[in-house]
Amino acid sequence: MQRYKCIVSYDGTQFAGYQVQPNKRTVQSELENALRKLHKGLDVKVFASGRTDAGVHARGQVIHFDSPLRIPIAKWEIALNSLLPNDLAIVGVEAADAGFHARFDAKGKEYRYFMYRSSRRDPFKRHYAYQYSHPLNIPAIKDALPFLVGEHDFTSFCSAKSEVEDKVRKVSEIELLEEEDMLIFRFTGNGFLYNMVRILVGTLIGVGSGDISSQAIPEILERKDRTYAGKTAPAHGLYLWEVHY
Amino acid sequence: MQRYKCIVSYDGTQFAGYQVQPNKRTVQSELENALRKLHKGLDVKVFASGRTDAGVHARGQVIHFDSPLRIPIAKWEIALNSLLPNDLAIVGVEAADAGFHARFDAKGKEYRYFMYRSSRRDPFKRHYAYQYSHPLNIPAIKDALPFLVGEHDFTSFCSAKSEVEDKVRKVSEIELLEEEDMLIFRFTGNGFLYNMVRILVGTLIGVGSGDISSQAIPEILERKDRTYAGKTAPAHGLYLWEVHY
Repeated sequence: MQRYKCIVSYDGTQFAGYQVQPNKRTVQSELENALRKLHKGLDVKVFASGRTDAGVHARGQVIHFDSPLRIPIAKWEIALNSLLPNDLAIVGVEAADAGFHARFDAKGKEYRYFMYRSSRRDPFKRHYAYQYSHPLNIPAIKDALPFLVGEHDFTSFCSAKSEVEDKVRKVSEIELLEEEDMLIFRFTGNGFLYNMVRILVGTLIGVGSGDISSQAIPEILERKDRTYAGKTAPAHGLYLWEVHY
Repeated sequence: MQRYKCIVSYDGTQFAGYQVQPNKRTVQSELENALRKLHKGLDVKVFASGRTDAGVHARGQVIHFDSPLRIPIAKWEIALNSLLPNDLAIVGVEAADAGFHARFDAKGKEYRYFMYRSSRRDPFKRHYAYQYSHPLNIPAIKDALPFLVGEHDFTSFCSAKSEVEDKVRKVSEIELLEEEDMLIFRFTGNGFLYNMVRILVGTLIGVGSGDISSQAIPEILERKDRTYAGKTAPAHGLYLWEVHY
């Protein structure tokens, strides 16, 4: 038996999220279907660094699985991709130690959120960036960022549905990039709660639109109450960019 | 009655091409459906600069239509986009002279063809660029370009199904751009025959892969026979980029 670590990229548009759900097309079920075919009907369980929601994309999701197959390491990517649908791809495979775990060994993650800042419709961006045509006060957004960076209890920035007990996370960096008509938020941290990046973005949009003051961020954190933060930004602008080990 | 000229952008992935066909989803039928709604059930015929095939994209297709509606010019784009599906968008509207014709007044067109030069699968490019992972001799392709530029009978580079009589067209420029892992062909000319850009690209790929010599291009043109040129490159790498008037 050998453990493999794979980097996985997917267009989230036509997936009901990462995790297996009955009668839904999910990333995990497509990965496990491909592995089952490769293993002649044997079930192979896949473990990911974490879930992604319906519509959320991934450039660098990481998974691991165990296999008894003696496939040379360089052939795994081709073998798996030949069995996967074309909106889901393996973009890297390496042999891992038997103790490696995609979720528990993850030291941090990077997410990016793409906003398309235009009132002009672009059919090529409809699934890949959140179109937002209202004015945004970018300096106000930048003023808000330092209040969010660091170790905080992010209860206010977590879906109320979450069952995680400890909501303290460390956001190590938030960067705002402006590239032509795209505004890109880069978030890196040791872990992110359910919907956390989307609520951070929604809150920062609230700051940029003048609904929320930059200076109010510390209080929103202190309240530990989801209702004080901004809206949850749409899923289709979000990309799980990289997982760090 | 006022004639309107519109610039139209579409993701060709889910269209059976531009032109109306029975029981198929086409760009023209979606445009005419939207106009019919806006005109309370009145049929409004749309005329385009030319057809595009199933899977072919457009950044700058041009259409015209006539309307009795007194909608301010600045509101047309919003009104039409609110009635169009999100893979098809109006990106410009202007009032045109009564004699303007999107097809007959077109002086030239620009097409671009995107090739993704990698053996690594990319789920985000699957519908938007032709993945080609084999080696290509770029200098050989560049050597072939001057033979294709200029006024020629392009019968060899036209689908044998075409019913057009006069197959003489003038290609004013072919440019090859390399941007990271993308190879982009830019074609400008006074008109392009059915499948012509895709056969030009397929032939240039034949030159780059060593199947066709650069020096053979003049003979391929002279033969006036489709079987002498290369394959028809896949539709999903092709974009109607701009129409010149």
